[in-house]
Amino acid sequence: MTSTDSLRELTQRVREFRDQRTWERFHDPKNLVMALSSEVGELSALLRWVDNADADDRVRGELRGRFVAEVGDVGILLLGLCDRAGIDLGEAVSSKLLANEGAYPVDAASGRAERPTQ
Amino acid sequence: MTSTDSLRELTQRVREFRDQRTWERFHDPKNLVMALSSEVGELSALLRWVDNADADDRVRGELRGRFVAEVGDVGILLLGLCDRAGIDLGEAVSSKLLANEGAYPVDAASGRAERPTQ
Amino acid sequence: MTSTDSLRELTQRVREFRDQRTWERFHDPKNLVMALSSEVGELSALLRWVDNADADDRVRGELRGRFVAEVGDVGILLLGLCDRAGIDLGEAVSSKLLANEGAYPVDAASGRAERPTQ
Amino acid sequence: MTSTDSLRELTQRVREFRDQRTWERFHDPKNLVMALSSEVGELSALLRWVDNADADDRVRGELRGRFVAEVGDVGILLLGLCDRAGIDLGEAVSSKLLANEGAYPVDAASGRAERPTQ
Repeated sequence: MTSTDSLRELTQRVREFRDQRTWERFHDPKNLVMALSSEVGELSALLRWVDNADADDRVRGELRGRFVAEVGDVGILLLGLCDRAGIDLGEAVSSKLLANEGAYPVDAASGRAERPTQ
Repeated sequence: MTSTDSLRELTQRVREFRDQRTWERFHDPKNLVMALSSEVGELSALLRWVDNADADDRVRGELRGRFVAEVGDVGILLLGLCDRAGIDLGEAVSSKLLANEGAYPVDAASGRAERPTQ
Repeated sequence: MTSTDSLRELTQRVREFRDQRTWERFHDPKNLVMALSSEVGELSALLRWVDNADADDRVRGELRGRFVAEVGDVGILLLGLCDRAGIDLGEAVSSKLLANEGAYPVDAASGRAERPTQ
Repeated sequence: MTSTDSLRELTQRVREFRDQRTWERFHDPKNLVMALSSEVGELSALLRWVDNADADDRVRGELRGRFVAEVGDVGILLLGLCDRAGIDLGEAVSSKLLANEGAYPVDAASGRAERPTQ
């Protein structure tokens, strides 16, 4: 399967995969969110004992294959969730970035973690 | 901010948002995975007491706004993680779908949850 | 190892296990929270495609062994986190129940999910 | 509410809190695991941008109150889940520690993260 830059094309592939297996009845939003928790948990498993300073090297080095595979799972589930819920992921991301512009003005947020007290 | 179907364009927007705030040092793969857990946890919070049968209506109805906002957060973090780790999300998704074709052949998987015993 | 009803005794066992392996330097609160996400993700994996109505039977039936093992992991990590952070789990639970008494008065909350709009 | 060291006593308090609000029908194992994901996500939110080296000070310092409250929520849900599923948490923890003795022999595991390649 060739790569693509298009969210619509990727979503189409995810939907076809699901429909060929008639998995629609399992893939309601609740189950998909739970599956997403599970796959993000797999990403956490890979990095839980790794220091921040080593994380970049690890995901580009020895963890590469497993990390990319888990990222693929998270992507598949997120696209499937958006498809099921009638959400345009590009729009959701763009809208949230716009909202975040207001919540984290450049001057106040510069060089500080998102929420200073956290 | 207008919507877009292009992963590259979305990634570019996420990167600019981060760089304007000089957040690179916080956004290593470990911290981003932890942030992803946190935002997927927000999605779980929205659906934890909802029955499967009601989940579609809820995310298209009264939960719509909050659900889309949390999906936006998950998308931002996933794109930021891929950008940081040098992963092409379209490729990761396509490769994983291909691998899943082998793991879940249409005949055997049709109409059954991904892992029958689970 | 015999069972015990005492949180202090369980915590003592968790600490000994860790110390025998000199894992103190890995087990800071950040890493332990990430490990907790990972193990709760394993519980999510077991139930993600199961309907609410079937969940009780599944965790008492075919999923029993794996479910108990994952619950054990979550317990070990939660006790280890409390030990590391100087938190008395019995006190944290009791205090939160008390706070919840105020947040969810019996009359208003009776028979409704914790947060009605969710 | 006074603190206690007894798991049975804590479980009894969690059960009474639930029953007074007739929440049994919401608290099946699937929903409780989803709620657990959500609350562990809150713990992740508190530490996501914090370095490992600062995590101990933060949870004992400025994050103390919020951290203890979230640990309380995780504890309540874990005890509620065990109660619902007929699991003795003390036994689950003890059995898993015993299994881990075999999986991580002291000599091999000493001073290394649980899974060296991760």
